[in-house]
Amino acid sequence: KKQYRIAVIPGDGIGKEVMPEGIRVIEAAAKKHGVDVKFDHFDFASYDYYEKHGEMMPADWKDKIGKHDAIYFGAVGWPAKIPDHISLWGSLIKFRREFDQYVNLRPVRLMPGVPSPLAGRKPGDIDFWVVRENTEGEYSSVGGRMFPDTDREFVTQQTVMTRTGVDRILKFAFDLAQSRPKKHLTSATKSNGISITMPYWDERVEAMAKKYPGVKWDKYHIDILTANFVLHPDWFDVVVGSNLFGDILSDLGPACTGTIGIAPSGNINPEGNFPSVFEPVHGSAPDIAGQGIANPIGMIWSGAMMLEHLGEKQAAAAIVGAIERTLGERTLRTRDLGGNADTTACGKAVAEMV
Amino acid sequence: KKQYRIAVIPGDGIGKEVMPEGIRVIEAAAKKHGVDVKFDHFDFASYDYYEKHGEMMPADWKDKIGKHDAIYFGAVGWPAKIPDHISLWGSLIKFRREFDQYVNLRPVRLMPGVPSPLAGRKPGDIDFWVVRENTEGEYSSVGGRMFPDTDREFVTQQTVMTRTGVDRILKFAFDLAQSRPKKHLTSATKSNGISITMPYWDERVEAMAKKYPGVKWDKYHIDILTANFVLHPDWFDVVVGSNLFGDILSDLGPACTGTIGIAPSGNINPEGNFPSVFEPVHGSAPDIAGQGIANPIGMIWSGAMMLEHLGEKQAAAAIVGAIERTLGERTLRTRDLGGNADTTACGKAVAEMV
Ligand SMILES: CC(C)[C@H](C(=O)O)[C@@H](O)C(=O)O
Ligand SMILES: CC(C)[C@H](C(=O)O)[C@@H](O)C(=O)O
Repeated sequence: KKQYRIAVIPGDGIGKEVMPEGIRVIEAAAKKHGVDVKFDHFDFASYDYYEKHGEMMPADWKDKIGKHDAIYFGAVGWPAKIPDHISLWGSLIKFRREFDQYVNLRPVRLMPGVPSPLAGRKPGDIDFWVVRENTEGEYSSVGGRMFPDTDREFVTQQTVMTRTGVDRILKFAFDLAQSRPKKHLTSATKSNGISITMPYWDERVEAMAKKYPGVKWDKYHIDILTANFVLHPDWFDVVVGSNLFGDILSDLGPACTGTIGIAPSGNINPEGNFPSVFEPVHGSAPDIAGQGIANPIGMIWSGAMMLEHLGEKQAAAAIVGAIERTLGERTLRTRDLGGNADTTACGKAVAEMV
Repeated sequence: KKQYRIAVIPGDGIGKEVMPEGIRVIEAAAKKHGVDVKFDHFDFASYDYYEKHGEMMPADWKDKIGKHDAIYFGAVGWPAKIPDHISLWGSLIKFRREFDQYVNLRPVRLMPGVPSPLAGRKPGDIDFWVVRENTEGEYSSVGGRMFPDTDREFVTQQTVMTRTGVDRILKFAFDLAQSRPKKHLTSATKSNGISITMPYWDERVEAMAKKYPGVKWDKYHIDILTANFVLHPDWFDVVVGSNLFGDILSDLGPACTGTIGIAPSGNINPEGNFPSVFEPVHGSAPDIAGQGIANPIGMIWSGAMMLEHLGEKQAAAAIVGAIERTLGERTLRTRDLGGNADTTACGKAVAEMV
């Protein structure tokens, strides 16, 4: 039987508090379902590490975590102490690029016990995936400034879409759509306004769609698409977008299902050439860090996505089921969801139900 | 007393149906409040015109409408018959660029009789403005494709931010915030991911904020900002964003207040060097065109914004009040809002209450 080796990086703030609960639940599910998981802990990709070493990660970070089966990641960043372009670009975004994690995958699912801000929506009504391109697009490093500090000053930044980059994310999204009962894919575009890159995106979507005759697909401009997330969240099954559009939709989606606080995500290299990173969508949340009140569900749910990615579907499904049962009980929920459990109590509850 | 000369362009689809109601209401308000308005009608910037002449507008379109005090615009586009890059870029976006309408202004206000998709929100709870940069940013014409039809194919498009372009939209937004009771401005950014243009935007916001010590301001990354529109729409007063971010927020905002179908907008050249364009946010809606059921409120409300822009505050306020009273009566609302009035009946109702 294969032993999975997981690199654990708690990172900053509440990342450190929710990580032990994530591990607790994975260990419980692994035991129950006969999965062998070994965790290796790393202190880099955090402000603490940066303070000590003057950099976010050691020079040999790839040797340290590049051979693991997956990376389980808490949260990084502490804007008051360290600028984002150091903390995020020195860790998370580095992983995405250098480990070629070209898929960012996030579920949008209305869970029991989590009130939706949308009137009249109940669990079961909202259940889709956002598939985001995670390496190129609007997050490029190409551009610059001219005529600084004069009236002629201007700044440019290029959006870059490569055939390789666009086609592989679309393939992933169409494959996912095809595997689901509804077999429905929605593409996020803005080709009526962003007149060069977005028509190219549309063109590649059309070409890819031809290879998936069983998948119904449509496209919306990003402006009306965000509106439809609010007005018709039941329309969606798999939504695919560029780096920026996917980023927006995968925050808006979880907001429509009540809170970003429980949303999980995967930064995935589907070929398995490099480890994938699984992390909650919420950040390090300096404002509530250190109080033991953070909601661990996003971390735990990310653990389920990680097991799913590793091929351990049973253990993954057991965790998602346990999350649903835990969220269904007010006393087991954390305060942000109207409960009174602390981080540990909530994590233990999930672990027991797994 | 000054006579205002308004260029009327109904455009396509339901634009033609809602325009007469807009004019009806403006004429009623003008009569009541002693405003002198003269309308000149134009048939260009429409598919019909394009079909006849092979172009969206005559060569001398600027001579024809460039001296008017404002342009009252219905809707343009008919994707099944004419591609967006011809219809939109040949009219609306041309106006924005060539008449230097660098402000796109849209209210987000929850109105009586219009149910919000957000649970528990009532009229008065949501009332803010989205100020969008309308000439540069992500909607640039700079970019291209290389290595077409090969595996190396790539496409780039530049986002362009000029000091002039950024500062003037920020000034407009800060001025607007300062004029409002809450004096609160929110800037949409994404400087943690879009690492060249967006930090520049942030820098200019900070510089501009120094000139407005009376305005409280904050900034959010666009991903969490869209989430906050849904979770905390009561947080906002004036929200300013780039061309793309403003576009997204000014569709999402109206969705949060129930429907894009009644939202108005102004494409404004604040200096008055060129006419400004006032148009409903909804498009030409080919699917319901020709049935007389389109909701004219967006067109009418845009007329109020136009009068406000011309300095006729009383007449403008009278129209907004009449809209509110009309929407409050089920029988006066159109079907999309659960009423049974047709386009004309709804328009007449507003005109009577003005
Ligand atoms: C039609 C389209 C080009 C336009 C835009 O994106 O600017 C529209 O969405 C708008 O907001 O007026
Ligand atoms: C932290 C930030 C750079 C990041 C992004 O925009 O990709 C975050 O919002 C996310 O979605 O993981």
